[in-house]
Amino acid sequence: MPSRRATQREVARLANVSQTTVSLILGNSTTQSFPGDTLERVFRAARELGYMPNRLAQALKTQRTMTLACVVPDIGNPFYPALVRGVQLAAEDAGYDVIALNTQSDADRERRVLEWGMQGRVDGIIGVFFALRATEFEPLTRANVGVLRIETSAKKSGPLPIDNLFVDNVAAATAATRYLLERGHRRITMITGTGGPQDNRALGYQRTMLEAGLVPDILVNSGFDEEAGIQATREVLLRPERPSAIFAANDLMAIGAMSVIRDAGYRIPDDIAVMGFDDIFAARVLTPALSTVNQFQNVLGQVAAHMMLQRLTELPENTPGRHREMPFEIMRRQSA
Amino acid sequence: MPSRRATQREVARLANVSQTTVSLILGNSTTQSFPGDTLERVFRAARELGYMPNRLAQALKTQRTMTLACVVPDIGNPFYPALVRGVQLAAEDAGYDVIALNTQSDADRERRVLEWGMQGRVDGIIGVFFALRATEFEPLTRANVGVLRIETSAKKSGPLPIDNLFVDNVAAATAATRYLLERGHRRITMITGTGGPQDNRALGYQRTMLEAGLVPDILVNSGFDEEAGIQATREVLLRPERPSAIFAANDLMAIGAMSVIRDAGYRIPDDIAVMGFDDIFAARVLTPALSTVNQFQNVLGQVAAHMMLQRLTELPENTPGRHREMPFEIMRRQSA
Repeated sequence: MPSRRATQREVARLANVSQTTVSLILGNSTTQSFPGDTLERVFRAARELGYMPNRLAQALKTQRTMTLACVVPDIGNPFYPALVRGVQLAAEDAGYDVIALNTQSDADRERRVLEWGMQGRVDGIIGVFFALRATEFEPLTRANVGVLRIETSAKKSGPLPIDNLFVDNVAAATAATRYLLERGHRRITMITGTGGPQDNRALGYQRTMLEAGLVPDILVNSGFDEEAGIQATREVLLRPERPSAIFAANDLMAIGAMSVIRDAGYRIPDDIAVMGFDDIFAARVLTPALSTVNQFQNVLGQVAAHMMLQRLTELPENTPGRHREMPFEIMRRQSA
Repeated sequence: MPSRRATQREVARLANVSQTTVSLILGNSTTQSFPGDTLERVFRAARELGYMPNRLAQALKTQRTMTLACVVPDIGNPFYPALVRGVQLAAEDAGYDVIALNTQSDADRERRVLEWGMQGRVDGIIGVFFALRATEFEPLTRANVGVLRIETSAKKSGPLPIDNLFVDNVAAATAATRYLLERGHRRITMITGTGGPQDNRALGYQRTMLEAGLVPDILVNSGFDEEAGIQATREVLLRPERPSAIFAANDLMAIGAMSVIRDAGYRIPDDIAVMGFDDIFAARVLTPALSTVNQFQNVLGQVAAHMMLQRLTELPENTPGRHREMPFEIMRRQSA
């Protein structure tokens, strides 16, 4: 950023147009159109002078807030702060602020985010929503608020202008299950919470077990946190035949599972191996370190921000939703 | 919440006043005053009918946004998401939304939060600020935005209406250092980042060492994250005489220290003990579990929200800043 901000008047003088023209063009006015060479002259002059729009004035005049919201289902799960940080990294480069909203994967709170978005407080919402369906976002898109959902599979939203960024969670859970099978495990129990990523992760596990001629064994709990992992694993260990591996639907649950397994006097991975999902910070520093699925949450956040900014600043209004797949990677560590 | 919202018209009828009067009173108008018995009648009627203000309309009419911002210096440090969650828990009970803003402890980003707050987007800002001094918040308080700072000591802000919630970090670092001394350690090295909580934590350590007739040994790094802990500890281990204990200024740095100590072939705590600060989630699940200082971040967030809501809804405008001390606790675990 230059030490002194160039003014619109200076841009107008260099571009040889009126200050009103500069104001309309740099303010992204959608009500006025200008000849291509005028646009070019103004943008070139603005770049040359290092013009930066006054963000407050811009918000007031163009109804743009220069703010993106990042909506997460559990700010206490380190996966999501890492995602928020990625969104912020990319958004800040473009002069956007990022605010984070936590829903605790509660349907009412998710709807409140919509209401909140309808009040014109943000230009775009990037989020992981557990409860809301695509059609519920329609009022937001009609109010010209950008919407990008981070999903666990390619969800088509029809003609709605809702973007979709996803890691193929069926494929990722399949890869995680295969990893355990390749290490000789046959009795693999999956523990998971309800909603959110559960369906696709359970599906990948289930299919892979059946294809290998094995019986899937899924224990569903209400939450996706450490406590849920503890409860599920206690149940698992009460059964007559214990599994040789536990595949947890996320790392927090895996950490809960590890503590129960250890407290019961079993060794990890020799007696019971544990596989997680997410690759949160703690996964790496545990002993034994947790084998898991990396979803590159920081990159995911950055790409989400880029797609959102492109929709907000480059794409024609109501461009139908775009779908983009993001990579995952199996992290081989010591727990499985 | 009742299943159907009572309207202001119904409240007016029961209170026997005009709908305009109800609108002004329940909208917390600051421009009109009413006789005490009128206020009483309206509030009683509203309570009886279970009237809940329409949040959107309220924001538009009274300039109230029913939103609090929680500003944190590092959303990637699990201490802060836990704080945000605490703020949200208490704020939601009162019908307020909470948004989180991450500054990465950068002075420019902290100032941007002020600018952002001046735009009337939130009713109050609860935050941990590393760079800004109390006087820099004055414009915000004049714009009637509530400000509560979470600090590491009792910082008086003079007559400014800025609230201050703090854990006495000098006392906490003193207690942590004493804990190590009581366990027989004499060569204790402190590793820390720059700014933020550094001053008070280093001060507590330094004083306690001197009082015990020992030489303080502080290694200052630029950051407060795992990487900073790794770098500092590598330096420590290169010296001719290694310490018997490392006191890290926060848990992330302690986790970095533990990995370096282990990689160098030393045992924790037998060869080198490690003490942290914060009691983040990972501290408990590490092997050995990390001895640290619990600041009860979730409670801290809840109390911060309560103090802010009281300022916003009960206290006379410009009530001078209040100061409240919060507790800490030494968590005895296996690493020290």
